[in-house]
Amino acid sequence: MTDSRQSALEYARQNNERFIEELKEFLAIPSISTSPEHNADTLRCAEWTAARLKSIGMDNVRVMPTGGHPAVYGESLKAGSDAPTVLIYGHYDVQPVDPLELWTTDPFKAEVRGENLFARGSSDMKGQVIASMKAVESVARTSGLPVNLKWLIEGEEEIGSKNLGEFIKKNAKMLKADFCINPDAGMIGADLPTITYGLRGLAYFEIRVYGPNRDLHSGLFGGTIHNPAQALVELIAGMHDKKGRITLPGFYDKVRKAGKAERAEIARLPIKPKDIVKMTGAPALWGEAEYTPEERVSIRPTLEVNGLLSGFTGEGSKTVLPAWAMAKISCRLVPDQTPEMIEKAMIKYVKANTPKTIRSEVKIITGSGAAITERDSMGVQAMAKGLEQAWGKRPLFKREGGSIGVVVQLQEYVGVDSVLTGFGLPEDNAHSPNEKLHLPTWRKGIDALIHTIFNLT
Amino acid sequence: MTDSRQSALEYARQNNERFIEELKEFLAIPSISTSPEHNADTLRCAEWTAARLKSIGMDNVRVMPTGGHPAVYGESLKAGSDAPTVLIYGHYDVQPVDPLELWTTDPFKAEVRGENLFARGSSDMKGQVIASMKAVESVARTSGLPVNLKWLIEGEEEIGSKNLGEFIKKNAKMLKADFCINPDAGMIGADLPTITYGLRGLAYFEIRVYGPNRDLHSGLFGGTIHNPAQALVELIAGMHDKKGRITLPGFYDKVRKAGKAERAEIARLPIKPKDIVKMTGAPALWGEAEYTPEERVSIRPTLEVNGLLSGFTGEGSKTVLPAWAMAKISCRLVPDQTPEMIEKAMIKYVKANTPKTIRSEVKIITGSGAAITERDSMGVQAMAKGLEQAWGKRPLFKREGGSIGVVVQLQEYVGVDSVLTGFGLPEDNAHSPNEKLHLPTWRKGIDALIHTIFNLT
Repeated sequence: MTDSRQSALEYARQNNERFIEELKEFLAIPSISTSPEHNADTLRCAEWTAARLKSIGMDNVRVMPTGGHPAVYGESLKAGSDAPTVLIYGHYDVQPVDPLELWTTDPFKAEVRGENLFARGSSDMKGQVIASMKAVESVARTSGLPVNLKWLIEGEEEIGSKNLGEFIKKNAKMLKADFCINPDAGMIGADLPTITYGLRGLAYFEIRVYGPNRDLHSGLFGGTIHNPAQALVELIAGMHDKKGRITLPGFYDKVRKAGKAERAEIARLPIKPKDIVKMTGAPALWGEAEYTPEERVSIRPTLEVNGLLSGFTGEGSKTVLPAWAMAKISCRLVPDQTPEMIEKAMIKYVKANTPKTIRSEVKIITGSGAAITERDSMGVQAMAKGLEQAWGKRPLFKREGGSIGVVVQLQEYVGVDSVLTGFGLPEDNAHSPNEKLHLPTWRKGIDALIHTIFNLT
Repeated sequence: MTDSRQSALEYARQNNERFIEELKEFLAIPSISTSPEHNADTLRCAEWTAARLKSIGMDNVRVMPTGGHPAVYGESLKAGSDAPTVLIYGHYDVQPVDPLELWTTDPFKAEVRGENLFARGSSDMKGQVIASMKAVESVARTSGLPVNLKWLIEGEEEIGSKNLGEFIKKNAKMLKADFCINPDAGMIGADLPTITYGLRGLAYFEIRVYGPNRDLHSGLFGGTIHNPAQALVELIAGMHDKKGRITLPGFYDKVRKAGKAERAEIARLPIKPKDIVKMTGAPALWGEAEYTPEERVSIRPTLEVNGLLSGFTGEGSKTVLPAWAMAKISCRLVPDQTPEMIEKAMIKYVKANTPKTIRSEVKIITGSGAAITERDSMGVQAMAKGLEQAWGKRPLFKREGGSIGVVVQLQEYVGVDSVLTGFGLPEDNAHSPNEKLHLPTWRKGIDALIHTIFNLT
């Protein structure tokens, strides 16, 4: 190990108590982004974040307006144009705390009990933001930063990052980097460091089926008018074949096949089918037989019914033949599917399968692409090695089933791929009472980030 | 024509102006059964009805309590035990009148304009009750009644006759008769006298499908947990085959086949497919190809989706994998299907088609049998001949697609079959503003009822 790496790690170890004190200060600000009564706190939190960036030597630090809560930016570009530029993403806002009575201690007075530090935002993700800052400080204050850095710390992640896309689009040049470290993804277990390198995209539809011009008496017309609710269920039932495969024309055409190596990595994930059954309470698992449950929610696209509505849905009985029926249906996409091609496939399917006895309508509500970062890219390699150096074992590699807006937006508007990781644990009670941060894991996380910085040189 | 028949018809002709005046009195009482603020009017209307029965010579006239608005009973049993006994059914309550501003004249001040008398209840069915009373009066005051009569005039028809079943069950002996004339069914056109001799029954179900124990994130679990909304649509879609036939096991086993003669009668009905398309606004008709549209809604059983509910149904998108999904499904039954056998068939189907990946639940909400009165029975024959005598043409025979509680209850609790007819027209605006009664048709109706009484001797 080089001397400079060793010095940085030593600095982090020696200053750990102070790091925790700074984290406690950060956690004391109730930056609940969803509550207008906390707007002043949220702004104060942005200013606090900016001050911390300045204190670790960042330049050009700014609290920048968005359509909602401000975003914090800072940079350090002194490593020269040959050195890589890393964007570090974070968010300073937190979830609400209710039900307050279920908290053992004040959510905004961080308290250490045993190996854990309890407070709202400790795990999600003020702890991760401080870990990133302190790793950078540890390198900057010892041998100096060997890479260029940019920071994007937003204040609306817990309310869907609704103004971030616009902000990223507008500031694409400022945010340009070789890759982004996003430590908001957590790890699978304290002893299982994890890198998330892909996300599924989304194409969300509303499908409406119309029949008669008003609700009819099901006795007077039942049997001779095609019931729109029945027509809709027939339409939707046909979207999967008997093997659970999606029948929309061309749906699978652009699905990137996962290779043997990737499937071997997925097989390393320690989640067992019976764990998913236990976690969800479903009677049994379901899905494409030729893929494992973990593969089905990561490398495979899906089509889900998110909602159904038609006719009479109250207590008791009403003998109505409904005038219309509606379904919300969404597809989870994988590379290289796009929302546009899936929209076309959906429209084609519905058109081809709408009998002359009804009318149908397809509306796309929202769409976002899938994201993937090559596993042999510089960022993934440096981070994987860093995690291994800190934990003494190879990290797990996973692709997430859901979408994360910022990852897609950075890829789309700035051309920057993200490497997702984090030092939060599934048992940290993120979004729930008694949120906590496991301090030994967090300390290892700071070390892993220090290693990652050096691994980039 | 016998002298006595001739005298009764003559009496009706001579007293027609007075009959109309009495009808206007009846129509002036706002007996809106659904409005508690009209409870006093509704009671007053029951008492007025009872007084009219007394005035035409009925005995044992009573305003009888039910769980809701009272029922009016009266009888005339002086024709001897060899003469047939006819039960006449009616209702004295009416629909609300809003929107009041759409009425040309006060709904409770009957006004004759041209050939029509306008008032709430004129067609549905105070006009029909008065026609029945005045036909009976015309016979009673001339040659005397050659048949025994009983009257059941309820006050809750417009609110679903919710207490009538209990009342009929309790007073089954009192209501015993050879058949029932129910003039609440109307006719297809002023020149098309109509007898309705059958009704479909009903078996109404709620089906629920359960998957995970809570709504899940469709990104994290979509593809590996069977979506209950998808499972439900698959279950329902399978309830019809490609030809529109119902697949519940044994569903058609007890369906009584309509003979050539009956199908020929149905073919006489003047309703054309394009009329149904126009009436409903549906793009095209639908159903079993080997039956005509009129047959599909009368002699054939059906299965309809009355309602669907699952997951997210608001504006926009929510990527939820719902914990459960629900459908309201009802079957229209024909003789000799029973709700009990259809419930068994539904449970059997759902059980057999529920995959291990979900749980399902079938609940029957309500059930009532189909009703049919033989076309060669005394009542149908006498009435058919009476209509032909008044109109100079053979009546149409039809079976109704819906259910009418009183018909089923009289058949089930008293063993009395109903012959449905009436002198209301489709264009009478029943339940709507400017309800009216076509007086020439109404006068012919009184004649038809006089003929029917004599045809029974």
